[in-house]
Amino acid sequence: MTSVVILGYGNVGKHLCSGFHKASDVTVKQVYNRKSIRLTSEVKEIPFTTDLTALETADVYIIAIPDDAIASFSEGIPLKDALVVHTSGSVPMEILADKNRKGVFYPLQTFSKASKVDFADIPICIEAEKPSDLQLLRKLGNALSKKVVEISSEERAKLHLSAVFVNNFVNHLYYMSEAYLNENHIDFDLLKPLIAETARKMEHLTPTKAQTGPAKRNDQKTIEKHLKLMGPSPMATLYKQFTDAIQRTTKSKSN
Amino acid sequence: MTSVVILGYGNVGKHLCSGFHKASDVTVKQVYNRKSIRLTSEVKEIPFTTDLTALETADVYIIAIPDDAIASFSEGIPLKDALVVHTSGSVPMEILADKNRKGVFYPLQTFSKASKVDFADIPICIEAEKPSDLQLLRKLGNALSKKVVEISSEERAKLHLSAVFVNNFVNHLYYMSEAYLNENHIDFDLLKPLIAETARKMEHLTPTKAQTGPAKRNDQKTIEKHLKLMGPSPMATLYKQFTDAIQRTTKSKSN
Repeated sequence: MTSVVILGYGNVGKHLCSGFHKASDVTVKQVYNRKSIRLTSEVKEIPFTTDLTALETADVYIIAIPDDAIASFSEGIPLKDALVVHTSGSVPMEILADKNRKGVFYPLQTFSKASKVDFADIPICIEAEKPSDLQLLRKLGNALSKKVVEISSEERAKLHLSAVFVNNFVNHLYYMSEAYLNENHIDFDLLKPLIAETARKMEHLTPTKAQTGPAKRNDQKTIEKHLKLMGPSPMATLYKQFTDAIQRTTKSKSN
Repeated sequence: MTSVVILGYGNVGKHLCSGFHKASDVTVKQVYNRKSIRLTSEVKEIPFTTDLTALETADVYIIAIPDDAIASFSEGIPLKDALVVHTSGSVPMEILADKNRKGVFYPLQTFSKASKVDFADIPICIEAEKPSDLQLLRKLGNALSKKVVEISSEERAKLHLSAVFVNNFVNHLYYMSEAYLNENHIDFDLLKPLIAETARKMEHLTPTKAQTGPAKRNDQKTIEKHLKLMGPSPMATLYKQFTDAIQRTTKSKSN
């Protein structure tokens, strides 16, 4: 049985807490949060504190707070030689305070309050200074997920950057389409099956194989029509850039 | 029972043919293709021809060929006053030859050879000159899908443009991430659960509500870190643009 204390009860902390609580070989001994909050009903029996000096003893302390606050927060933890890990994609492990054993436990997923999370399919990227800690984190990861991988801080930063492209930027493309269709009184819901299928294709196709559309087939007539429809606008600028980028890619593949 | 002839056996024609063949109240009377091809085994009993002068009589003739070829192809169909529709998102209805009744039957989805298609959830956008033809196309659409909507050529062009953003451009973001991770010897598969969840969120959240990430929370430190990681590159240029665009949007929302 591995025992953990969750430090921070935001989106990630909340989902980790529920996930560990359900796992058979993990005990969540305590949840800490700066401000007093109510734990969700499924985990309401877990002891809660707002007092860092009242931390329970545990195998792993998991910091789940905003990136900027991790370094100073880890300094303020009144423990010594405990295993303290953070859950951030973009923050290096070494930023953690030297007085404790350092590690990272990064679930590569987007968490929101509204959505339930099934950890089974979420890759957990782990890192630790000591091999025995890495082993402990691997065990902890396996309690949640089928996929636990050792990833260095440098690789994790690159993964996180890529995650920004396939999540944040993809979502902004959804946003632009929605705004454009709303302006034109056309129902955004009509695009939802296409949005779902575009992502689903990644289960069995590479992005290169999945690419279709006017840019890919160099259909200048449709491209011109689209640019005329949008007029000069930030949307049109982005359209041109993607079109150029897709055409560059397609050309370099066929050469 | 509605009878159809499918003109063109590419991706769209093939999927429509299989879809109609399975539907209880539609008969596919014939498939035409410019070149001789083999029909997929599930529809192999459907009569096939490469001879436009040998077309069977049917309620609806469905053109499923490349956009550029639709106009001249429709001129070449040796019929009069038949209902001839095309399946393109970006081509106006009026481009069809005047000698026949015009219509559009546009399934809003991305089709590829490899993937099976379930038409039930695919919006079918229909258009026709005559109300009775519109009714016929609605019936035909309902035989495949739960969602059949009347959409004008102008609206359809705008829908198609938006589809390019949420499909072609989204897929290119997948491509860029894959290329970047491959260069850095990191497994692209790690991003797949995130790709799936990003799309799945659209089932119950608006893009505005679903937006997260460094740009959204104005996390300059992470943004700088990301730009440094990429160095000067087309990827970095796109990163800056998306970041600016997301920040513009977020600001205008909070004002």
